[in-house]
Amino acid sequence: MLLDQIKKPNDIKNISKSDYGKLAEEIRQFLIQTISETGGHLGSNLGVVELTMALHLALHLPEDKIVWDVGHQSYTHKILTGRREGFGNLRKYGGMSGFPKRIESECDCFDTGHSSTSISAGLGFVRARELKGEHNTVVSVIGDGSLTGGMAYEALNNASRMDTNFIIVLNDNNMSISENVGGMSKYLNNIRTADNYLNIKEGIYNSLRKTKHGEVIVNRIRRAKSSFKQLVIPGMFFEDMGITYLGPVDGHDIQGLLQVLKEAKRCKSAVLVHVLTEKGKGYEPAERHPARFHGAEPFHVENGVPKKLKLKANYTDIFSTVMIKLAKRNPDVVAITAAMPDGTGLKRFRNIFPERFFDVGIAEQHAVTFAAGLAAGGLRPVVAVYSSFLQRAYDQVLHDVCIQNLPVVFAIDRAGLVGSDGETHQGIFDLSYLSSIPNMSIMAPKNKWELSDMMKFAVGFQGPIAIRYPRGQAYDGLEEFRAPIEYGKSEVLYEEKKIALLAVGSMLPIAEKVREELKHQGCDCTLVNARFVKPIDEELIERLVPGHRLLVTLEENVASGGYGEKVRAFVDDRRLEVATLAVSLPDEYVEHGNVDVLKKEVGIDPESILVKIFEKMRDIS
Amino acid sequence: MLLDQIKKPNDIKNISKSDYGKLAEEIRQFLIQTISETGGHLGSNLGVVELTMALHLALHLPEDKIVWDVGHQSYTHKILTGRREGFGNLRKYGGMSGFPKRIESECDCFDTGHSSTSISAGLGFVRARELKGEHNTVVSVIGDGSLTGGMAYEALNNASRMDTNFIIVLNDNNMSISENVGGMSKYLNNIRTADNYLNIKEGIYNSLRKTKHGEVIVNRIRRAKSSFKQLVIPGMFFEDMGITYLGPVDGHDIQGLLQVLKEAKRCKSAVLVHVLTEKGKGYEPAERHPARFHGAEPFHVENGVPKKLKLKANYTDIFSTVMIKLAKRNPDVVAITAAMPDGTGLKRFRNIFPERFFDVGIAEQHAVTFAAGLAAGGLRPVVAVYSSFLQRAYDQVLHDVCIQNLPVVFAIDRAGLVGSDGETHQGIFDLSYLSSIPNMSIMAPKNKWELSDMMKFAVGFQGPIAIRYPRGQAYDGLEEFRAPIEYGKSEVLYEEKKIALLAVGSMLPIAEKVREELKHQGCDCTLVNARFVKPIDEELIERLVPGHRLLVTLEENVASGGYGEKVRAFVDDRRLEVATLAVSLPDEYVEHGNVDVLKKEVGIDPESILVKIFEKMRDIS
Repeated sequence: MLLDQIKKPNDIKNISKSDYGKLAEEIRQFLIQTISETGGHLGSNLGVVELTMALHLALHLPEDKIVWDVGHQSYTHKILTGRREGFGNLRKYGGMSGFPKRIESECDCFDTGHSSTSISAGLGFVRARELKGEHNTVVSVIGDGSLTGGMAYEALNNASRMDTNFIIVLNDNNMSISENVGGMSKYLNNIRTADNYLNIKEGIYNSLRKTKHGEVIVNRIRRAKSSFKQLVIPGMFFEDMGITYLGPVDGHDIQGLLQVLKEAKRCKSAVLVHVLTEKGKGYEPAERHPARFHGAEPFHVENGVPKKLKLKANYTDIFSTVMIKLAKRNPDVVAITAAMPDGTGLKRFRNIFPERFFDVGIAEQHAVTFAAGLAAGGLRPVVAVYSSFLQRAYDQVLHDVCIQNLPVVFAIDRAGLVGSDGETHQGIFDLSYLSSIPNMSIMAPKNKWELSDMMKFAVGFQGPIAIRYPRGQAYDGLEEFRAPIEYGKSEVLYEEKKIALLAVGSMLPIAEKVREELKHQGCDCTLVNARFVKPIDEELIERLVPGHRLLVTLEENVASGGYGEKVRAFVDDRRLEVATLAVSLPDEYVEHGNVDVLKKEVGIDPESILVKIFEKMRDIS
Repeated sequence: MLLDQIKKPNDIKNISKSDYGKLAEEIRQFLIQTISETGGHLGSNLGVVELTMALHLALHLPEDKIVWDVGHQSYTHKILTGRREGFGNLRKYGGMSGFPKRIESECDCFDTGHSSTSISAGLGFVRARELKGEHNTVVSVIGDGSLTGGMAYEALNNASRMDTNFIIVLNDNNMSISENVGGMSKYLNNIRTADNYLNIKEGIYNSLRKTKHGEVIVNRIRRAKSSFKQLVIPGMFFEDMGITYLGPVDGHDIQGLLQVLKEAKRCKSAVLVHVLTEKGKGYEPAERHPARFHGAEPFHVENGVPKKLKLKANYTDIFSTVMIKLAKRNPDVVAITAAMPDGTGLKRFRNIFPERFFDVGIAEQHAVTFAAGLAAGGLRPVVAVYSSFLQRAYDQVLHDVCIQNLPVVFAIDRAGLVGSDGETHQGIFDLSYLSSIPNMSIMAPKNKWELSDMMKFAVGFQGPIAIRYPRGQAYDGLEEFRAPIEYGKSEVLYEEKKIALLAVGSMLPIAEKVREELKHQGCDCTLVNARFVKPIDEELIERLVPGHRLLVTLEENVASGGYGEKVRAFVDDRRLEVATLAVSLPDEYVEHGNVDVLKKEVGIDPESILVKIFEKMRDIS
């Protein structure tokens, strides 16, 4: 196997040219085989096998820098830098990350995870190189999907008219996670499918020269200040921004790639290399279903069918269903996603209400302010978004939605620990950053029925309101409790004495187990479903205090600014005679791994919580 | 006076055409006169007098919608909608806002303040109109400076290839608050100064037709998928995005503007009207010094000189000076601003170290991730930014800087209440949103010397660290206290008994007054300069508890996730025997007005704080 010769960075340079195709094939088979067992990002990685090989051939790592936008396409890069063995524990706790990580290899120069950061970071490396008088090459690899994110444009705007080399590889697979959207995507598609412009240009020039005033016009064109010379070749959008454009080039032709990279390295400016790739390349099921194989669960290699069939609905499915019901009842309900029609469950909504569905691309900031405009225009927008991606729109929620108190519903999926994607994707900050915002209300459902009830409540609510729910299977316990949602009110599930557990959303099933164990040990225990994180149910807390010695808040969120701090501040303000214990996540990033393992690790599993409760009870007795 | 005939929306339509010039002149004189007395945004408003008149002539408000990007250029709009009298109390507490406000007039359809939101919001109004079957016209007015903000591009990307009308007026004055930067700015400048392209195009077509295969080529051009027809006219950048381009047009020629707006209203697509305006138009001092007259203090009309001369340095000046010192000592120190070289005080740094200074334009997201790249590349970047604008980069701080624990310094100016700019500009959330982020450290200086010491400490610190300081005059009291900065340690100024005040940064002068009054009333009082908001000084708190009955935290920030909640959580966790009182801002947006008035209003002035302390002492005794 050629792959056996790749043990450390730059080993690929010892492979003979004639074997590049074979090596690419071996990498592809390795990726398909491995990911079919561990799960992971397949389509994007299959698409960049040759591109990554070409980059490793053209560059010298770790001196040269490759910044992988998003970073889930860095598997071949990991193989070529000697981390093939790490794939056995890919995305497992303590194992190799599915994203570039500086702590994992000196060939990973910058950690990524969220979209559209690579050009900014790359530009930082370039400026540092210049100031330090170094001579390496910096390459940012960005997908066409990531190019819809505004900060990529902010960075392009700043990469304009530079007098030093900076290579931006546009990995254009004509896809975001789902279909790509917007003007830029259509523009790139035009280049993909255009006639041979170069010939047109020559044709025009030659024709012009033969006419009476032709030579004058040609000269006038050449003198024109706006780079008229490039008007008739592809990529003038980038040239207009002051960035040299090279391409398009076939992203599966290593020799062609090497040639264009060689040319790119010679430019004394920012240069955009437009590379055409195919997502899922070389594995037919992934080519046919790119969205499904974006982030794949373990599957059967022969047909691509997932190994574990989903038996129970997850929260996304529940959201998906209730959105259609709500939209049928209320013609003002519209839905917005930032490039996640599948992930957020809005695909069915799109099919039924295409004109009331808006996929804005990877553009969370626009998504939120656009929703504010829709609400100001009289509609009831629901923004469906992952918790960690809504971080991108903190200012838009605060500044565009909440100052005006506009009725926008935020359906926040993947809230809490998400597992194998790790630090960048954990949805463990939303309760904090949303709580800081005036006029914002925040809910979290205890089970699948409550998500429906909360959605119904939210679209009828006269102000900004968020519902956060976790990744994965929807809890279907506690079905006997379904009191109507009342603004700012918690739901008391079991009212007893001594200890009261106040649990937020995803912590309810865990709180139930804690209570069972406490009861088993003869200790009475009240269990409250918080329902509202903001505002907190002050009345209930005051009512509970007399009969209880300890209030335990439980939330899958960092402590600072979360539910626990709010409850404690209230208890302090009123000088209520009760001890408090806040169970929350530590002030740390949480790495990748199985969610149940992670919960133990950070101390929000039933056993860890019981230990904390017993300690506290000893303390206060 | 013609202005006397403008009493309500659409009254301008009764003014005869021949008087438009006279009316424009009256508005200009009114603006200069008024703002010279009240202060406010002058340059941007003088630039759009004719444009605003043309919009009000071409549209019918409030049915038609104008979304003003940023919004500080809406003064003429306010005059034309019958709010001339409001200018007497412009930006004063209880008076008229300097920004569009829905609660102020039904002609203000959307509140703005931060940059680059108008196209997103406008697109929301357009989609709402379509779904509701309404027929109004929606216009977003955006400056070329705002166009460097990524979310404007996200919105343009989504406005592409629409089949309904949406007018985007690009108010191009070739300026941000300071000079505009980047590729887009240069591109627009090329259009401003270009030859007459339209003639070139006609020339080419005519020439081609006369040649042998000319007709064939012309037809081929016409058939080309990428809108080749527009390649040879200005604005193909926008045409490439799928947006019709009209212009450029002289922004001070009302008839020309009316003609192009008429044409724009006929388009069945998004249409960008490129309007060339001059910032400060008609007032010579503002034309010559656009940055100074961006947001002006009251000035003498005859020469533009400020009425009140600045006697003492403000924090921005201190920052400005210390940055130069630090940069002289350490060649790795570099500075980044998002379009605020003047406002942040980096102008002098730019003049001395041009190659180590980066103005990225209005692009906070890019600014932060770019800084992360610079830090990963071995430099010591200092991002100087206003508190409320850093909200835009919450995710970049969390995801690009702090996960990798990169040594980026955030110099956060305008933290706390800023006064006359109101809700959108108050810097009252930074302690909350930054506290939620792991690996982040946060400081606040008590006086001007401490800002210097903290900056020095920060550029030597091995991780992300923020220093927040308020707008306006730097406090020069407490000069006798200057203990070296120690990580995570507070500074005890007076150690006594009974009550301990733990004050953050800008609250020190207020806490001093509170302490004086307490002493005056015979009550002992410890005064602590918190210095670090994250991490808090746990050791000190534990040490203080035995001698004190009440710990009072004071901060100019909302309560949720702030300093007070952290101190209280610690006191609760350790079951320390002491009462706590958290003085902070209420969970509300704070409107415009004089900062001292606002402080009283929200209860963080010495008197209000004393009342709270006495109440609490009564409670706990």
